[in-house]
Amino acid sequence: MDTATKHLSVTPVEAGSIITPKGFCAAGIHTGVKRYRLDLGVIYCEVPASSAAVYTLNKVQAAPLKVTKESIAKEGKLQAIIVNSGNANACTGIKGIEDAYSMRSSTADVFKIPEHYVAVSSTGVIGEFLQIDKIINGIKKIKALTQVKFDSAERFNEAILTTDTINKRACFRTTIDGKTVTFGGAAKGSGMIDPNMATMLAYITTDANIEPDWLQVALSEVVDETFNRITVDGDTSTNDTVVTMASGLANNQSLTKDHPDWEHFVLGLKMTCEHLAKKIARDGEGATKLIEVQVSGAKNDEEAGKVAKAIVGSDLVKSAIYGTDANWGRIICAIGYSGADINPETIDISIGEIQTLQDSMPLPFSEEEATQYLTTENIVISVDLKVGEGFGKAWGCDLTYDYVRINAGYRT
Amino acid sequence: MDTATKHLSVTPVEAGSIITPKGFCAAGIHTGVKRYRLDLGVIYCEVPASSAAVYTLNKVQAAPLKVTKESIAKEGKLQAIIVNSGNANACTGIKGIEDAYSMRSSTADVFKIPEHYVAVSSTGVIGEFLQIDKIINGIKKIKALTQVKFDSAERFNEAILTTDTINKRACFRTTIDGKTVTFGGAAKGSGMIDPNMATMLAYITTDANIEPDWLQVALSEVVDETFNRITVDGDTSTNDTVVTMASGLANNQSLTKDHPDWEHFVLGLKMTCEHLAKKIARDGEGATKLIEVQVSGAKNDEEAGKVAKAIVGSDLVKSAIYGTDANWGRIICAIGYSGADINPETIDISIGEIQTLQDSMPLPFSEEEATQYLTTENIVISVDLKVGEGFGKAWGCDLTYDYVRINAGYRT
Repeated sequence: MDTATKHLSVTPVEAGSIITPKGFCAAGIHTGVKRYRLDLGVIYCEVPASSAAVYTLNKVQAAPLKVTKESIAKEGKLQAIIVNSGNANACTGIKGIEDAYSMRSSTADVFKIPEHYVAVSSTGVIGEFLQIDKIINGIKKIKALTQVKFDSAERFNEAILTTDTINKRACFRTTIDGKTVTFGGAAKGSGMIDPNMATMLAYITTDANIEPDWLQVALSEVVDETFNRITVDGDTSTNDTVVTMASGLANNQSLTKDHPDWEHFVLGLKMTCEHLAKKIARDGEGATKLIEVQVSGAKNDEEAGKVAKAIVGSDLVKSAIYGTDANWGRIICAIGYSGADINPETIDISIGEIQTLQDSMPLPFSEEEATQYLTTENIVISVDLKVGEGFGKAWGCDLTYDYVRINAGYRT
Repeated sequence: MDTATKHLSVTPVEAGSIITPKGFCAAGIHTGVKRYRLDLGVIYCEVPASSAAVYTLNKVQAAPLKVTKESIAKEGKLQAIIVNSGNANACTGIKGIEDAYSMRSSTADVFKIPEHYVAVSSTGVIGEFLQIDKIINGIKKIKALTQVKFDSAERFNEAILTTDTINKRACFRTTIDGKTVTFGGAAKGSGMIDPNMATMLAYITTDANIEPDWLQVALSEVVDETFNRITVDGDTSTNDTVVTMASGLANNQSLTKDHPDWEHFVLGLKMTCEHLAKKIARDGEGATKLIEVQVSGAKNDEEAGKVAKAIVGSDLVKSAIYGTDANWGRIICAIGYSGADINPETIDISIGEIQTLQDSMPLPFSEEEATQYLTTENIVISVDLKVGEGFGKAWGCDLTYDYVRINAGYRT
C-alpha cells in the first residue's frame, strides 16, 4: 500500500504529541543516571488502555523486555510506561531482571495501579547494572510532574534520548464512526551507538476504542512496513521496543478488521509510525540526508520491501549518495543480492526524477543534474522490477565520515 | 574444521604462484582499456585441465559468467582463462554476450584449442560496452608472452587488478600417493568499489589428478569456508567468480572422496583459498586492519560461520576496531541478530587474549591492554557459544574514514 495515495483520510496535527489523544499525560525528570540531561520518563493513561507491543528480533534481549512482555501478556492492558535512558539494563543477568521488576513495582505503587499495568523500557550502556536507587527516587517524584501539562510531552521525549540529535514526535488524526480519533507518538533512536549501542524505542498513544488483540494485529502489520523498514547500519539492538496504548476515550465502536473504518485506523497508526521511522533514519549518526527507496513491480509487497531495504542498507549506495554520485550500478547490484525474485533484464531505476536504467540497460543522463539533485536533503530512489504488483518503501541515511568518527569513538 | 590444527600436511611455497603447479603458464598485457596499467591476462594449461567454478549469488550476472558456465558445462575441461580488467561487461545486454563470446573465440583461435576449453572473466566499470577491438588485439599478442616465464604470473596478477592495493597470490604444497601436489592461486578484489563496483575473482591452478565432478565437490566445500566468509561491505558483485584448473600432471591416483589423501587435497585447496581470501579482506578499501573472527561451540559449522560473518560484517564492530575500542557489546549484539541458534546466557567473547564476556556477563579487563592489542594489524575475535561443537571463521576489515572517502568518490 502506498500511503502517499491515502493521506487524505488522515491529517497531521502540527503541535500534537503523545498527550494529545484523550486520557494521556506524561513527564520527564532528571535522576542523575545521566550527568545533566533528563533520564527518566513516564507515559500515564487515566484508564487501563488496550495495549500491544513489538520487540527486537535480536536473540539477546534486555531485562526490561521480559518484564514488559509479562505485563502485557496478563490482560493486554497498560496504564503506565516507565523508561530510563543512560543504561540499557542489558547483559546484566538475574540482577538486571530484579532491577526491571523494581522499576515496575515502584511505578505501580506511585500510580496506585496493578504491577501488570506497567511496562518498562531502558536504553543506553549495556553490561552495567542500573543505578536503581536513583531511578526509584525519580519514579517517586515523577507522578507529580504528570500533572504539569506544559512541556510534559517534550520532557518525556527528551528523557528517552541517548545519541539522538533531534526530538522525535508525531501526531495524526482521523475519523472513525464520525468520531475524531487521535494518534500521538514519541520515539528515540539514531543507529546503534554510544556507548555500546543505542536502541529504537517508540511509544504510540491513541484514544481509539479497540481490543488488545486487534491492536496487536494492526501494530504488527504497521511495524513491518515502517520501523522494520529503516536501517542506519543494519544492526539490531537488544532493547528495541514499540509499545502502543489505546485509551478508548474516543468512544468509537470497538475496532476489528470488519469495522468499516478499520483501514483509517491502520493508516493513522501507520502514518504515525512512518513519521517517527523517517525521523529516526534521518537522525542516523553522521547522516546528512534521508534516503527513501520506493520499489514497485515486485512479486508482492514483502519482496518489494526486501529489495528496498537491501538498497537503503548498502554501504556502497549510502556512500555514493553522500558523495552525490548517481551510482545506479550499486543500486542494481543491491537489487540482485536482495534475495527477492527478480528478472535481471527488466529493472528500471530512477534517482529523483532522473531515470538512469531502463530494462537493466543504462540510459544517458546529465551527471550535473543528478549531482544537483543528490545535494538535496531528501533523496528518493525509485525502482520498478516489472515482475508483479508488489510495492514497498524503506528509509535510511547516507554513510559519512562522521558515522565512522562517532562509532570509532570511545565508550566513555 | 579448524585449519590451524592441520597445517602440517600442507606447506606454503614462498615464491610460488599459479604457474608453479606442473603444466601452467600465464601472461599479462596492456591493451589500452586502462590508461597505463596491464589490463588483460591469461592462464594457459598445456593439457585440457579438469575444471570447476563457483559464481556470484547475485541474480544480476555479467555476460562473461554465462559464457564461462557454458564452456565448463560441456566437458568440465579448460585450457585457458582470459581475463580483462577496466570494464566488467555487466548490464550490457545482448552486445555484452556477443563481446564475451568473441573474447572466447579469439582466445581459442590463438591457442588452437576448442572454444569450450576457454573461460572468460571481466572486472571494472559496469554498464559500458567493452572496447572489444583493443581486447582482441591484446589476445592476439598475449600467447607469445606466455612463453616468457620470468614475471609472467606477476603480470597476470597485475592485469586482473582494479582498486586493489596489493597483488594477491598463494602457493601451497601437499603429498598425495607420495607424489608432490602443488596449488597456485591468484586473486583480485578489495570491496565493491571503483568506478561502480569491483569484483572478487580468484583462479586456482593445481597439478593434482582429479575428475571435474570431484573437483567441483572440493571447490564448493572450500569456497563456502573461505571466499564466502569474507566481507568488506557486505555487497556481492555481479561478476564474482572462482575458477580452478587441475592439470593432472602430478600423476597421483585420480582423487575421490574415498581416496586416502582426499583430506590433504581439500586442505591444500582450502589453505590456498583461505590465504587469498584473507588478502582480499585485508585489502578492503580504506582498511588498516585484518579482522579474523573465530566462533566455536555453535550448533554446527554452518551456524558458526553465520555468527562469525555477522560479527565481521557489523559496521559497528568494524568502526570500533578502527577506533581501538574493545566494544564487546556490539559483538554480542551481532551474535544475537545473526540468525543462528544460540543461548543468550552462555556466550564467551575474547578480543585477542583478553576475555571480555563470560556466560554473557561482562568481565573486568584492562582498557589499556585492549587498546594496545587493537592497535595491531591482525585482530582476532573469538566467541564460544557453548551450544554445540560447530566451528567457523570469517574475515573482514575495519571501517575507516578512507572507506567513505573512496566510496563517496566519483566514478570518473
